[in-house]
Amino acid sequence: MSLEQSFKSPIAADVPGDTRTRLIEAAGEVFAEAGFNQATIRDICARAGANIAAVNYHFRDKETLYGETVAHAHRYSMEQYPMDGGVATTAPVEHRIEGFIRSFLAKILDPNRPTWHGRIMSREMQEPTLSLDMIVETGVRPNFHYLCSLIREMGPHLNPVEVEGSGASVIGQILHYFHCRRVIGRLYRDRTDGFPYDLELLTGHITAFSLAAIRGLEQAAKARASSQGGRR
Amino acid sequence: MSLEQSFKSPIAADVPGDTRTRLIEAAGEVFAEAGFNQATIRDICARAGANIAAVNYHFRDKETLYGETVAHAHRYSMEQYPMDGGVATTAPVEHRIEGFIRSFLAKILDPNRPTWHGRIMSREMQEPTLSLDMIVETGVRPNFHYLCSLIREMGPHLNPVEVEGSGASVIGQILHYFHCRRVIGRLYRDRTDGFPYDLELLTGHITAFSLAAIRGLEQAAKARASSQGGRR
Repeated sequence: MSLEQSFKSPIAADVPGDTRTRLIEAAGEVFAEAGFNQATIRDICARAGANIAAVNYHFRDKETLYGETVAHAHRYSMEQYPMDGGVATTAPVEHRIEGFIRSFLAKILDPNRPTWHGRIMSREMQEPTLSLDMIVETGVRPNFHYLCSLIREMGPHLNPVEVEGSGASVIGQILHYFHCRRVIGRLYRDRTDGFPYDLELLTGHITAFSLAAIRGLEQAAKARASSQGGRR
Repeated sequence: MSLEQSFKSPIAADVPGDTRTRLIEAAGEVFAEAGFNQATIRDICARAGANIAAVNYHFRDKETLYGETVAHAHRYSMEQYPMDGGVATTAPVEHRIEGFIRSFLAKILDPNRPTWHGRIMSREMQEPTLSLDMIVETGVRPNFHYLCSLIREMGPHLNPVEVEGSGASVIGQILHYFHCRRVIGRLYRDRTDGFPYDLELLTGHITAFSLAAIRGLEQAAKARASSQGGRR
C-alpha cells in the first residue's frame, strides 16, 4: 500500500515524532516544491504520516500552516546564524563586518540546512505573501540596520545613500552565491581550487572587496567634506 | 464565450499578427506563471489566439516551444543591452566598467521589458533545464569574461580568485536589485529620493563601490608582489 493510499482513511496511525513538527517539515517540502497554490493538504499529510484532522487541530487551515512553515525556517535561520557571527562588540569594526559576512555565507552554504528553507524563502521573494512582511520586519530590517551601523562606523563621512547602498552591495555579493548557484556551478564547472564554494575563501574575498570599497568611499567623502568646509 | 471556451474547437480563427511570435509571447507568460510542468499547450494557445496545430507546426512539442521561448528572451536581452553599454573600447577602463554596470542595470530596471522575461530566467536559475546551459554558454560566460578582462586591466597584480571573485561581486551587486526587489521595496517603503530604483543613482553607487574595491585590492596585491620580489 502506498503512503498516499494509507492516508485515504481519516484515522491513519501517526508515525513516531512530534506531529506538529513533522507537519511543518512536510509542509515546507511540499510548499517549496509546488508553491502555495498547487500544494495540497493531502500531500502534506501523506508525507508527514499524519491525518487531515491533525492539520485542522494544529494549524486550522492551509494559510496558517504556510505562515507557520515560513516562520519556522525564518526562526531557524535567525538562531543558527546570528548576525554578529559571534564576534564581540568590542572587536574592531572590520572584524565585525567580517563576522556578519561569514555568518550570512554560512547559512547559504550550510549543507545541513534543509533545502526547503532556501527554496521557500526564494519563492516568497519572487511571489510574496504576508509572510514576507514578517520576514522583512523581524529579520531583514534589523540585520540590515546592524550592517549599516557598522558601515557608518567605518565611514563616518558617508551620506545615507552611500551607507545603505554599501549595505545592499555587501548583501548582494553574498546572496549572489545563493540566487545564482546554478549558473555559478556551470560557470566554474572545471575549477578545482575550492572557489567559489569554500566558506573561508568566499568570506575572505567578499570582506576584502567590501572593506576596500568602504575605505575608498570614505576617503572620497572625507575629501568632499573638507573641500566644502574650506569653501565656506 | 470565454477565451478558454472559444479554443475548445480545433479550428479557432487566428487573431492578427505573426502566429509564431504570438505563441512565443503567450508561452513566455504561461511558462513564467505556471512553470514548465504545470503550463499547458491549451492555455498557451488560448492566450495566443492560435490553435494547437500551430504549435505542432511551428515548434513540434512543448519542450521545443519552451526552449525557443527562453532563447527569445535571452536574444532580446543580448541585443537590447550590449555588455559594453555602448562605451568605446578606447575609453578609460573605469568608464568601460561603468558602461557594463549601467547596461546590466538598465535591463533589470527597464519598465518596457516584458515581465515574463525576468521571471522565466529566474525560474530557469532555480530549476534549470537544458536552456540554462545555452544561456550560460552564449550569454553569461562571454559577459563574465568581458567583465573579468576589464578588472584584470585595472588590477594587473590580482590573482585569478581575486579577478573572478570581483567579477562575481560586481554582478551580485547588480542582480540584487532584481532577485531581492520585493524585499527592497518593503525595506525602502518610505524613501522619496529615488533610491534604490533610479538607474543613474544605482549605476553611480555600484560603480563607485566596485572601482574603490578593485583599486584597494590591486594596491594590496601590488604591495604583496613587491614584498615577495624583495625577498627573493
